[in-house]
Amino acid sequence: MIYLDNAASTQIHKDVLDSMLPYLKEQYGNASSIHRYGRLARKAIEKSRKQIALLINADPSEILLTSGGTESNNTVLQGILTTDSPSHVITSSIEHDAILEPCKKLANTGTAVDYLSVDELGFVDLSELESKISDKTSLVSIMFGNNEIGTIQKISEIAKICNNQNVPFHTDAVQAVGKVPIDVKELGVDFLSVSSHKLHGPKGIGALFIKKGIKIDPVILGGGQESGLRSGTENVANIVGFGRACEIAKNNLNENMDYVSKLRDLLIRKILDEIPEVTLNGDPKLRLLNNAHFTFLGVNGEDLIIKLDEYGIAASTGSACSVHTQRASHVLQAMGFSHEQITGSLRLTLSALNNEKEIEETIKSLKIIVEELRSFSPFKEKYSFNSKN
Amino acid sequence: MIYLDNAASTQIHKDVLDSMLPYLKEQYGNASSIHRYGRLARKAIEKSRKQIALLINADPSEILLTSGGTESNNTVLQGILTTDSPSHVITSSIEHDAILEPCKKLANTGTAVDYLSVDELGFVDLSELESKISDKTSLVSIMFGNNEIGTIQKISEIAKICNNQNVPFHTDAVQAVGKVPIDVKELGVDFLSVSSHKLHGPKGIGALFIKKGIKIDPVILGGGQESGLRSGTENVANIVGFGRACEIAKNNLNENMDYVSKLRDLLIRKILDEIPEVTLNGDPKLRLLNNAHFTFLGVNGEDLIIKLDEYGIAASTGSACSVHTQRASHVLQAMGFSHEQITGSLRLTLSALNNEKEIEETIKSLKIIVEELRSFSPFKEKYSFNSKN
Repeated sequence: MIYLDNAASTQIHKDVLDSMLPYLKEQYGNASSIHRYGRLARKAIEKSRKQIALLINADPSEILLTSGGTESNNTVLQGILTTDSPSHVITSSIEHDAILEPCKKLANTGTAVDYLSVDELGFVDLSELESKISDKTSLVSIMFGNNEIGTIQKISEIAKICNNQNVPFHTDAVQAVGKVPIDVKELGVDFLSVSSHKLHGPKGIGALFIKKGIKIDPVILGGGQESGLRSGTENVANIVGFGRACEIAKNNLNENMDYVSKLRDLLIRKILDEIPEVTLNGDPKLRLLNNAHFTFLGVNGEDLIIKLDEYGIAASTGSACSVHTQRASHVLQAMGFSHEQITGSLRLTLSALNNEKEIEETIKSLKIIVEELRSFSPFKEKYSFNSKN
Repeated sequence: MIYLDNAASTQIHKDVLDSMLPYLKEQYGNASSIHRYGRLARKAIEKSRKQIALLINADPSEILLTSGGTESNNTVLQGILTTDSPSHVITSSIEHDAILEPCKKLANTGTAVDYLSVDELGFVDLSELESKISDKTSLVSIMFGNNEIGTIQKISEIAKICNNQNVPFHTDAVQAVGKVPIDVKELGVDFLSVSSHKLHGPKGIGALFIKKGIKIDPVILGGGQESGLRSGTENVANIVGFGRACEIAKNNLNENMDYVSKLRDLLIRKILDEIPEVTLNGDPKLRLLNNAHFTFLGVNGEDLIIKLDEYGIAASTGSACSVHTQRASHVLQAMGFSHEQITGSLRLTLSALNNEKEIEETIKSLKIIVEELRSFSPFKEKYSFNSKN
């Protein structure tokens, strides 16, 4: 199988699994227990917290462990607003549902929510942001890199605008952490969401960076773990794996960035060169370096995925999470795409575990599949679907 | 190490880990993905859901997967009350903090909360429950078996009272599921919380039984996983392990009940016989069959734990989770215990992985340690600490 759906989830690194195994076998203590088993679990958690912090240049005390990126996002949105007696939240129209759905809930309970529009490449408009901020604004939340089209926002500039106005700024960085250098201090963010399974760690674990001094209320209450901000017995094995995955990501960051972006560029170039009537979506430069998102005109993206699957290639039309809602991509709609353009979407997302041979094979299969699907296309007359070579 | 802290967490069963490994290695798909990797993950989750449901005689569609018992409890308390425009919740004074802390939050936001008192064995008073229920009551939440002293409530009778009054009834059964037979239909409960790591499954995963037809709002919002009731990429490996742990617990239930309760009875009998000035707390019969909770007069429980740890025995004074709050057990306080009685607490909780030799060794060590600690006790004159044999 050629796995090109790394934005949905990634393979656990072998060393990550090795680091987890002791905590799935003999080190099964509850980290809150006083005895040796408990103390060993506690120590392992705090080591991981340091590894996670190091990857984004945070202090370990600024790392809140959660059950994943979705919970991290919910924690900010639901947590800051109970503290602050909320009035106004600003986000963008292309956020992940883990931001948009909590925003809907807030809107239903009296918080004003503004959704910034984006241009055809997926960038929010900074002057629109500035114009929307008022002294009632409790939070701005703009994602780092988009999970569908890969566009990376100007996070430093957004942070500067928020800092100048004294408004806390959160960025959902689950698609970016471990793939591009992220320094929370340099960026100037107040909150940043991280997900383990997007960076070759286990699922069911994530983190929220909370800048020192900023207060939020917990969403999950109970025994008072995580300094009272997230109760529940710690998932020690997954935390350990997450920490190790962050350490590996940090150690290999430059090398992987170089390797993956070259693979990705090869993929993009070949597809655009060898298949007619294809466009690359999102910004060609300012994009997640493992992301390639296309529109194949006259093709249904879901048919494409199913055919690719038959050829042994795992791909996606957009967000895996949107499968439950079965609706057209809100990201592409916000970018002004037509229904036809949205229907023809294909997302291919890479990791350092992919190689050039897989890219070549993918192109080969894709050419056959697209040609086949287009032979049945109702748009056959409209476009020039003849093979380029 | 002799591990006698199974109420805090349990060792993962070897077969459970084996069932998880494929999902920590080659089966890393996101369960929402359309391709083969995604479909395999989805299939594995639904198989687990069946295994979990079978253990408590629920329908798989009634099982909501969460990040653990604490989240399950929060989901009921926070979820039912947004739907119902809340007015009144009834719980008990000996619940776990994962119930009491959400109740505090509810009380702070205008919900009336009643805490039922308990007798000296830890039983709630059913007539007090009846007298508190009104047409404003949105939920009754009473735990199944207490995590500290082990007393098992009359859950069927409580359910009957609630059903008669049309009030939804939740029981936090994390200490009981997998250890005693639990049939949600026979019990007549509307909600029931389960935790994987209390029954030899992995940490970071749990379930909430929600009786068909009962509506609650989600706490964690986003991509719409778990029928929209709990968003976030599913923790496939842990879900698979949880399911397998439930299956194993079901298959071995009668055998383990017999084995563990005999071990526990031996432990209790020997301690009461061989060490002076010790009392067993909680009901002697209606208790979790792996739980033994004592007061050793004239001894500080924490000193006892630390000494036991030096002797290679992992034990606890009460709830592991209460370590964060560093306060005296609210359970023992509610049962009317004096400060001196609370201070002398020791909880020993067994599993089917313990054996008679470990019990014998524990008694031997305990006798030495208690005698040593009592030789420094300020209560030396008050009690007759002379060894019984």
